[in-house]
Amino acid sequence: MTSRPAYGLSDWGTSRFRLWLVDARGEAVAEKRSDDGLDASRVRGFAATLESHLAELGAPGNLPVIVCGMAGSRQGWVEANYVPVPADLSAILSGAVRIPGINRDVRIIPGLSQSGGSPNVMRGEETQLLGAILSRNLSNGIIAMPGTHSKWVTLENGRAKHFATYLTGELYALLASQSILRHSIGDTAASASPDHPQFAAALDLMLSGERMLGELFGIRAAMLLEDLSPEGAAARLSGLLIGAEVAGARAKNEGRVTLVASGAMAALYGKALAHAGLEFDRVDADEAVRKGLFVAASHTWPITQERPA
Amino acid sequence: MTSRPAYGLSDWGTSRFRLWLVDARGEAVAEKRSDDGLDASRVRGFAATLESHLAELGAPGNLPVIVCGMAGSRQGWVEANYVPVPADLSAILSGAVRIPGINRDVRIIPGLSQSGGSPNVMRGEETQLLGAILSRNLSNGIIAMPGTHSKWVTLENGRAKHFATYLTGELYALLASQSILRHSIGDTAASASPDHPQFAAALDLMLSGERMLGELFGIRAAMLLEDLSPEGAAARLSGLLIGAEVAGARAKNEGRVTLVASGAMAALYGKALAHAGLEFDRVDADEAVRKGLFVAASHTWPITQERPA
Repeated sequence: MTSRPAYGLSDWGTSRFRLWLVDARGEAVAEKRSDDGLDASRVRGFAATLESHLAELGAPGNLPVIVCGMAGSRQGWVEANYVPVPADLSAILSGAVRIPGINRDVRIIPGLSQSGGSPNVMRGEETQLLGAILSRNLSNGIIAMPGTHSKWVTLENGRAKHFATYLTGELYALLASQSILRHSIGDTAASASPDHPQFAAALDLMLSGERMLGELFGIRAAMLLEDLSPEGAAARLSGLLIGAEVAGARAKNEGRVTLVASGAMAALYGKALAHAGLEFDRVDADEAVRKGLFVAASHTWPITQERPA
Repeated sequence: MTSRPAYGLSDWGTSRFRLWLVDARGEAVAEKRSDDGLDASRVRGFAATLESHLAELGAPGNLPVIVCGMAGSRQGWVEANYVPVPADLSAILSGAVRIPGINRDVRIIPGLSQSGGSPNVMRGEETQLLGAILSRNLSNGIIAMPGTHSKWVTLENGRAKHFATYLTGELYALLASQSILRHSIGDTAASASPDHPQFAAALDLMLSGERMLGELFGIRAAMLLEDLSPEGAAARLSGLLIGAEVAGARAKNEGRVTLVASGAMAALYGKALAHAGLEFDRVDADEAVRKGLFVAASHTWPITQERPA
């Protein structure tokens, strides 16, 4: 027995598109993942892209849809402004922008911004943050959301007070595939293992205060002089970058960490946090973003009000 | 009046080829620069490439040629082994490998290697190092050779004791042209100015102990939130990376720095060293490599022995 969908939830990023249809309790009744990120969708049209995915899942024509991610950026569908930190989560919930000129009720969740000495922005992660906070009932601590652009948010009395971005994932991909280190890493880039001794050794080096910039070339040299394997090279690069991120974040934050991550990322960062002596709980990244989207949808279109079929 | 050439000197790197014909006192009588780096030369043949450039400069068929750089790597012409540190400079001078199977006497200068805890290699910079040391009569201190892979060498009692490599130049190029920061920097990547206030601000941030990985994304955010210009973005990225390099090197070395650099690089690093409170002298990078090549040539084919015309 499949429940009737109450909302469409979409995480629409630069390179990925995800869509869930959920019932009134937030349980997924259908799901779709595709590569229709921003670039692909801009060509075809954002409304047409979304409608085609909704149709594939058999969504009713009047199902309301909430969207987070880069679809709300200036290069996206409709720009949803940033909510400045320190921010109450209710400001995110109530800031969703309705897409004009289409029949369906589609809204885009705003990002977060930080001005002043450390300018910063996020789009998409604010929804993960919302989901993680609500699913764990957090009001203080640190939320770490690793990825292409890892975000570390300091939560204080239920407000997002400050955040930092580490270019870890993007730098890893660039170095492994385009730099001198590509000769050492090759095809193993995607499978850096947290259990390889090079990962732990690199973590410890970074956590002891070394600078990553002066350690990268050593991967190439260790291949030439000491027969470092491609697996070892990938693990070492991952350890240097994640180690630098965690060392930087540890120096600026106090408190228990909530790690929002899935799969391989969760394993790598879990080990890094443990090496750094940071206590943490884990929240699955997919569940967090879906939870955040569902809460925003419920807030926008309250559930007590039965929607027409 | 042009003197008769005594030697050909070549700095043959991954992407660049340079050739000088010099007289018995080391004065250049002819010069050639081209893009015939390793990849181009491998296709055409190394001997054919070298001969064609020598012919263009009117070099005699029996002119001996000394070569430094990646031409001596495993992917190059003939592999010239590494001399391990701690190394006497005489070991570099006497380690040149003769190319077999050709009529002309061509030799390739060995690189330097460092095993153990911090594996490292250099090829080409050992010749710059030689030139800088000999032209300034150095026996102790630090030699900084900025570039794609910046090298910092500790000199002790006339021996190269230890060295480090910073991936600064390569990382700058990757980030400016391939990462999210390309939208902020665009075509201004090649002209980062040491006089832009963003350069000094970024230097000071890195020299105060910040981690570069957590500051890179701020360039993108400052463009979105604070209208940071492309020139400001390029200067900031340059300051973050050079600042991280100089901060790392400062933490590991004591003593006067000899900066081996030319042009824009000399201006950027000169400012960074001054901000770091490091005293330095400058040696022109081109002159250093030519001087090193000439000294190696004179050592290999002593000048007292008149060469046949």
